[in-house]
Amino acid sequence: MPFETNRAPSSRTRVRRFHERGCFDAGTIADIIDGSLMCHIAFNHNGSPAIIPTLCWRDGERLYLHGSSASRMIKAIKGKSVCIAVTILDGLVLTRSAFHHSANYRSVVIYGVAHRLDCANEKSHQLRQMMERMFPGRWETLRPVRPQELKATQVMYVTLDEASAKVRTGAPSEEETDLAWPTWGGVVPLETISLTAIPDSACRAGVSPPGLAVIRKFTDVS
Amino acid sequence: MPFETNRAPSSRTRVRRFHERGCFDAGTIADIIDGSLMCHIAFNHNGSPAIIPTLCWRDGERLYLHGSSASRMIKAIKGKSVCIAVTILDGLVLTRSAFHHSANYRSVVIYGVAHRLDCANEKSHQLRQMMERMFPGRWETLRPVRPQELKATQVMYVTLDEASAKVRTGAPSEEETDLAWPTWGGVVPLETISLTAIPDSACRAGVSPPGLAVIRKFTDVS
Repeated sequence: MPFETNRAPSSRTRVRRFHERGCFDAGTIADIIDGSLMCHIAFNHNGSPAIIPTLCWRDGERLYLHGSSASRMIKAIKGKSVCIAVTILDGLVLTRSAFHHSANYRSVVIYGVAHRLDCANEKSHQLRQMMERMFPGRWETLRPVRPQELKATQVMYVTLDEASAKVRTGAPSEEETDLAWPTWGGVVPLETISLTAIPDSACRAGVSPPGLAVIRKFTDVS
Repeated sequence: MPFETNRAPSSRTRVRRFHERGCFDAGTIADIIDGSLMCHIAFNHNGSPAIIPTLCWRDGERLYLHGSSASRMIKAIKGKSVCIAVTILDGLVLTRSAFHHSANYRSVVIYGVAHRLDCANEKSHQLRQMMERMFPGRWETLRPVRPQELKATQVMYVTLDEASAKVRTGAPSEEETDLAWPTWGGVVPLETISLTAIPDSACRAGVSPPGLAVIRKFTDVS
């Protein structure tokens, strides 16, 4: 840490290559995006850097996000260059020296232009994709989307042409001479999990919560 | 979602006020930062937006981060305007319509200039603060930092003068007429937890892993 990103070459010059911990392998990039519910999007706003966390999902070679038609972020990014990070912190890596501590992580950084989906059918399809990715099968059980709700929602995308991944896994790496120091070294794994779902007061008896894809469900604290 | 941020007024005009889900209360902002191990930092790099995930910690009215002296990020942000987000996703909020789904979260966005700590003593003190915040008591057990290691590390900070928080908690909010729809509504809580620590091959018998502050420890998967 910090986990520096590699700026991918433009799609015209894109090659499969590894540099430090970075890679441009499409499968690795897709897996990392699919393993996270959210991203952070950076953009210039009146000449200053700005950042917004938001839910995201992937479909093919595009990363999608959504927001209200009135959203300042949606208005600010349309047609503009953005930089998006998807980051999964998998663990803390502990060594006998402060200096060689590190983190295990999987991250993707995407450079691109934010485009708006203008076709109502495509928009509706992608909102369904977002829901299906998180809660497979839930879309069909919902009160159908009204035309004015679809109008009040914008779906944006950035292509993955200029995306790169960085991954660190495994044990610490430290100096041989430090290994005899009598302090614990190793990895403390981290994971984002879901806990027992909490029904609202309108829930009918016998109606079960949907299964959440991507995230494992835990119930016990040790 | 997306969770839009409020740009805080400058420190001179800073007042305690709430707008939508946003607030500028220093205690709320501090608690959110202290509840997360990492942040995302956005900055302009050669005129384009860039973003980097990195570990961070707070001490008083400053957010700190660190990196290698050779780091492109460290070089790019020194003395420049940055925007930093600390985001904790606490849950997914499910309603009977797709439109009213939301997320429970706590987020802080900080606008400021990235300053470098030039004093070796201050730098060393802050690296200790970072370690103490994650693993209280560990610093004293480590092989002491060497002068060349300290030189190879930079510590940067941004003041919290222009920080704002946004928080959503609790149950879904949806239209009365949707509540009779026979679909599950409620909250699926999310949490980042630590799992059983994995010692490296040099670990001596009887040396225990340090306790990790901030993050709860789980052992069982249901």
